[in-house]
Amino acid sequence: MIEDKNQQRTQLSDLGEFGLIDHLTQNFKITQSSTVKGIGDDAAVLNFENKRVVVTTDLLVEGVHFDLSYVPLKHLGYKSIVVNLSDVFAMNAKATQVTVSIAVSNRFPLEALEELYAGIETAANVYGIDVIGGDTTSSTTGLLISVTALGEVEANEEVYRNGAKSNDLLVVSGDLGAAYMGLQVLEREKEVYKVNPNNQPDLEPYTYIIERQLKPEARKDIPVLLAELGVKPTAMIDVSDGLSSEIIHICKQSEVGCDLYEEKIPLDPQVISTCEEFDIDSTTVALNGGEDYELLFTISQDDYVKIKANPNLTVIGHMKQASEGMHLVTRADTRIPIKAQGWKNFNA
Amino acid sequence: MIEDKNQQRTQLSDLGEFGLIDHLTQNFKITQSSTVKGIGDDAAVLNFENKRVVVTTDLLVEGVHFDLSYVPLKHLGYKSIVVNLSDVFAMNAKATQVTVSIAVSNRFPLEALEELYAGIETAANVYGIDVIGGDTTSSTTGLLISVTALGEVEANEEVYRNGAKSNDLLVVSGDLGAAYMGLQVLEREKEVYKVNPNNQPDLEPYTYIIERQLKPEARKDIPVLLAELGVKPTAMIDVSDGLSSEIIHICKQSEVGCDLYEEKIPLDPQVISTCEEFDIDSTTVALNGGEDYELLFTISQDDYVKIKANPNLTVIGHMKQASEGMHLVTRADTRIPIKAQGWKNFNA
Repeated sequence: MIEDKNQQRTQLSDLGEFGLIDHLTQNFKITQSSTVKGIGDDAAVLNFENKRVVVTTDLLVEGVHFDLSYVPLKHLGYKSIVVNLSDVFAMNAKATQVTVSIAVSNRFPLEALEELYAGIETAANVYGIDVIGGDTTSSTTGLLISVTALGEVEANEEVYRNGAKSNDLLVVSGDLGAAYMGLQVLEREKEVYKVNPNNQPDLEPYTYIIERQLKPEARKDIPVLLAELGVKPTAMIDVSDGLSSEIIHICKQSEVGCDLYEEKIPLDPQVISTCEEFDIDSTTVALNGGEDYELLFTISQDDYVKIKANPNLTVIGHMKQASEGMHLVTRADTRIPIKAQGWKNFNA
Repeated sequence: MIEDKNQQRTQLSDLGEFGLIDHLTQNFKITQSSTVKGIGDDAAVLNFENKRVVVTTDLLVEGVHFDLSYVPLKHLGYKSIVVNLSDVFAMNAKATQVTVSIAVSNRFPLEALEELYAGIETAANVYGIDVIGGDTTSSTTGLLISVTALGEVEANEEVYRNGAKSNDLLVVSGDLGAAYMGLQVLEREKEVYKVNPNNQPDLEPYTYIIERQLKPEARKDIPVLLAELGVKPTAMIDVSDGLSSEIIHICKQSEVGCDLYEEKIPLDPQVISTCEEFDIDSTTVALNGGEDYELLFTISQDDYVKIKANPNLTVIGHMKQASEGMHLVTRADTRIPIKAQGWKNFNA
């Protein structure tokens, strides 16, 4: 028997630019009442009534933010939406719409873009948002995804980075460091694969941390939860660059200091065990790893009773006078100044 | 004497990502009353009260949409804003804010990005819009600019592509084909320069068409003018891909046909003379050249008296039943079906 070895591979040039956009977005549905007109005109038209509108944007670049040798395109599409929604939630807002633009080289067949857009569509469905526009163009090399996300929030319910006060409590959702350790495992397996492509990696012990890297979720639930608990944070930010970096943003913009307690930093058991395996300090990973997409916020001490029993939230420190500085208080009770590391994309 | 031959050239890695954004956007001012919070938090916060919000986005990619061998970075920054604002004006809206994201390789020094942002700032000042956010990241190659523009319009004053009716008049602002002919001149001079770098080109006869290519303007004035004249177009689109392509968009979405009169198409004398020099048909250039950023719209015949004396506006045809098709009526009074050409970025 003769096998058909041709994988389906449609050239992008077969469709042209308009055909491509139409094809990729044909399944997208409008579900938000604020969307008057989505894709298909010079611009989308939205109606937020008297609510405040939040707008945020992010670029994801192949070879800088993702490596297609171990990131499935569907996951990448999903993640490209999630990282933007995380910024909307960090304003205490509800995410409502996104625009998605991609630049892509001819080496990608149509089927690859369909995978990418399937991930985008899944994220839109999971988070209940509308894809209202975008642009699709060729690039001379690689894949680049630019997403702009919009959200809505009642006037005066938005939360900035600059409202933290001395004595406020510092709170974080979920746990930290998992996405970074997931990346370490994926990069190790890539090296192993290069040496021996027949080696079947056992990724079972790393399921959680790999999922946190490849398919992160944004904390849509936290603004809702805080509203239910009757808590309005004094400042909020999402943890995309690492806990250190985000604490510094809040402290600088709010003109306060901070004590962060090492023993309070929430870590998943898989993060701890993988850190031991890689001989990396788990606190360093939580502080500098990034890509957690958890929410970091400050609340008045008066609100402590409202949040203390909630398993989604951990108090990890408290704010001080700016003159007292920003410190990590270690398990050994020493005080180490907090410095930003995070991602340095421009380093050669 | 020993000359200092070092041009100022600061590596992007010297600043890091946060330093770079802060540095590039430090001069940007907030002027729109709808901007509550601009750059500096997880997201910008806007207040459009009860107006409708329009959102549009575009990607510009080096080697696809621009060639840095003859496009100055300051002009590129200006143009990247203008092409997006054009889509806002095409909705009959007022432009209010933009986000600007760039991906840039390390081969660009800081001074190059400062030039780019100087152009962005100039456009923001000229058009009275706020730059409210963005992202700056490294790319593995070249420069890419992603802009999202927002605008506002009173409810029911927005104009879509789908409202044209049979017997409506087809109107265009300004003149067509100049940007395309400017590009032809620039590409010819680039070839001449390659052969003889000492050759000084005389670009004096091409001033207007080169400016239309390198530093186009969007028709901010047209929605204002139409409101003053008491005319609400039945459909509107901006001419970015060429007149043919835009007429087809309006006809298909409005389910109408069209007669376009060749003799009515507005052409600048420089376009006509340069077309003769290059032995290109000027009607073909107007139909398929693109990048004019004029506004193409349809109005009820009842509104003809309101616009007929205006030097900014030219009636170039009228709409018909869909079954009658879309045709160019030539000077020789033959009827040629209108077909889209436009830019085909994905062609190999």
